[in-house]
Amino acid sequence: MLEPLAHIGRDPATGGYLRDAWSDADLELREWFAGEAARRGLDLREDRNGNLWAWWGDPSRRPGVVTGSHLDSVRQGGAFDGPLGVVSAFAALDILKNREIVPDRPLGVVCFTDEEGARFGVPCMGSRLLTGVLGSDRALGLTDDDGATLAEVMTRAGRRPYDVGRDDETLATVGTFVELHVEQGRALVDHDRPVGVASAIWPHGRWRFDFRGRADHAGTTRLADRDDPMLPFARVVLAAREAAERRGVVATVGKVRVSPGNANAIPGLVSAWLDVRGADERAVRELVAELARFSGGGPDVREESWTPTVDFDAALRDRLAKVVGGDTPAPVLPTGAGHDAGILAAAGVPSAMLFVRNPTGVSHSPDEHAERADCEAGVVALADVLEDLCR
Amino acid sequence: MLEPLAHIGRDPATGGYLRDAWSDADLELREWFAGEAARRGLDLREDRNGNLWAWWGDPSRRPGVVTGSHLDSVRQGGAFDGPLGVVSAFAALDILKNREIVPDRPLGVVCFTDEEGARFGVPCMGSRLLTGVLGSDRALGLTDDDGATLAEVMTRAGRRPYDVGRDDETLATVGTFVELHVEQGRALVDHDRPVGVASAIWPHGRWRFDFRGRADHAGTTRLADRDDPMLPFARVVLAAREAAERRGVVATVGKVRVSPGNANAIPGLVSAWLDVRGADERAVRELVAELARFSGGGPDVREESWTPTVDFDAALRDRLAKVVGGDTPAPVLPTGAGHDAGILAAAGVPSAMLFVRNPTGVSHSPDEHAERADCEAGVVALADVLEDLCR
Repeated sequence: MLEPLAHIGRDPATGGYLRDAWSDADLELREWFAGEAARRGLDLREDRNGNLWAWWGDPSRRPGVVTGSHLDSVRQGGAFDGPLGVVSAFAALDILKNREIVPDRPLGVVCFTDEEGARFGVPCMGSRLLTGVLGSDRALGLTDDDGATLAEVMTRAGRRPYDVGRDDETLATVGTFVELHVEQGRALVDHDRPVGVASAIWPHGRWRFDFRGRADHAGTTRLADRDDPMLPFARVVLAAREAAERRGVVATVGKVRVSPGNANAIPGLVSAWLDVRGADERAVRELVAELARFSGGGPDVREESWTPTVDFDAALRDRLAKVVGGDTPAPVLPTGAGHDAGILAAAGVPSAMLFVRNPTGVSHSPDEHAERADCEAGVVALADVLEDLCR
Repeated sequence: MLEPLAHIGRDPATGGYLRDAWSDADLELREWFAGEAARRGLDLREDRNGNLWAWWGDPSRRPGVVTGSHLDSVRQGGAFDGPLGVVSAFAALDILKNREIVPDRPLGVVCFTDEEGARFGVPCMGSRLLTGVLGSDRALGLTDDDGATLAEVMTRAGRRPYDVGRDDETLATVGTFVELHVEQGRALVDHDRPVGVASAIWPHGRWRFDFRGRADHAGTTRLADRDDPMLPFARVVLAAREAAERRGVVATVGKVRVSPGNANAIPGLVSAWLDVRGADERAVRELVAELARFSGGGPDVREESWTPTVDFDAALRDRLAKVVGGDTPAPVLPTGAGHDAGILAAAGVPSAMLFVRNPTGVSHSPDEHAERADCEAGVVALADVLEDLCR
């Protein structure tokens, strides 16, 4: 199913994907989306925030049922996270057409922009802008690793950056949203089921710790004279793991920037990004406060993003579990990963998610995988759900 | 004295310098060097390895007395490290001309290429190639952060990379080498003297530690299921400091690369560069072995460079100390920093160094500084030394 996309943005050295928002790879993926929409006679729209919508029926008449996900990736990510939901959306529409269903409600396929936040640091940028959770001023000023702002990057891609922002008209077309996604853990393996339904998204946030010291020569500065920020940084990495175990949450340092970054110079600044998530919102917040205290107020600590617990619409969730599983409803699982469905749910749009089994649980890695049979079961489940919701 | 160079390659945000070898800034600095040579009627040559030589007299007739240093910088470095030695060399020649000295030996000013190794990771590239310590095959294959090889970078700068390598003809022109450099510690402050002479360069090396783990999702992977290389890396940072204190050497981790480097992904690889130096060669080597053992053989450890102790020519050193200090000879100091003078000394060229007082000892940082009066004292000392050596 993902074969037509397999070559786009793939790093031949690692097999991982590099599909930053608005990169050449992203633009090629958008072209592919437009082609799929055209092939099916769907009406293609790009909203002011760069999200793509392909409609079967006219959503200005009546709010529609929308499914889809995103096509961008984390750096060195896998093939499934995002694209599986978009590819499955088109495939589910094909099944409905084969079943000769004439939907009572408009049906839409969406591709959200920059879900991973790999380029500008803010995940779910497309849905956050759409719903107004992220202000356009803040978004346009975000910079990528080359120092280019979102405004500059969108302009280069031929978009109009100063149109971005809350878009109630587009949001009103989404009556219900269902996102299919590869599972990013192994709960469905334990349940021995190919498809599950999401109950909630754990609260999660991202904090930037700036450890400041004094840049100096690595050979001539006595240890006693040093103010080396690499040391408190290393202590915080180890303390974060220990505190996460104690508090029953997960904490990760996956991005580090060392300045000036010379092998023969003591750094002047080490910046580290801490990602923390867990079932218990208070435990997450307390861990961050504990680490800030632990390091004696040394580093500047800034919250870059925060998403409170998202509980998906309970009635919709149960309806999906029943449609998918029948007498033995599909397993209902919480997740530690953020998704555009969570942003829409928090904005009041009835939203739900389907998960497709991941045999190893590995995600955000070239090793991310789902079996073909499970992906096909996911498409059928999604078609059943859309048919049910369109009645 | 450094005013004409102050704007070249300066980062306006930090005041630090970005003067990578063969960058636009470096090419501009080379133009400046050529201009200074022309202004004084010196004969300019660029050797096969990109080192610049400005001659007063013909060194093919008789090996000359050469002084100079380098113009490239570490990233976010200061104004003095390198350029002070080049600027002082030209100024010392001016003094000799004002004194109406007619040197018996040819006098040369040199600017060595890529002393800091900021771009390709190998310091003293120009002098290492010149002397053959670094082979041309290895050098040409080194890559910068953008993946460009030295061969490609030199070609872009209009040079002929396949000419690089050991150059005995050029080396034979250097009868004696004297490098003036800003001190990178505070020994001259303690001695209350503006100028000192080098005794030796500590043995020093650079090792790359690759910590491998399994890239995975930061939100959905249970702590118990993780193989996160950030943790052993952090432990090695702390262990390196502890072991350096115990063994009486200095150890620094100043450069780190995290792959894939997403805030929301557990890394698959953390690479860290460890710089170790000390008076005792065995202590340096044992520290590296201890860290490799400490991390249980986890990381791949590769030696990127190694320079044994360099003892400068004792007779030359004492001669300089006497010329500079007269009845109270200039202080004689060891240093933990590598220099082209050390490479030449190891290759058998009688070499020496003059240090100019650094009030804070800070180096490899925008805060690096030397007082104007001390710089002027350095120029006079260098002129006295050259006059003495040219007789």
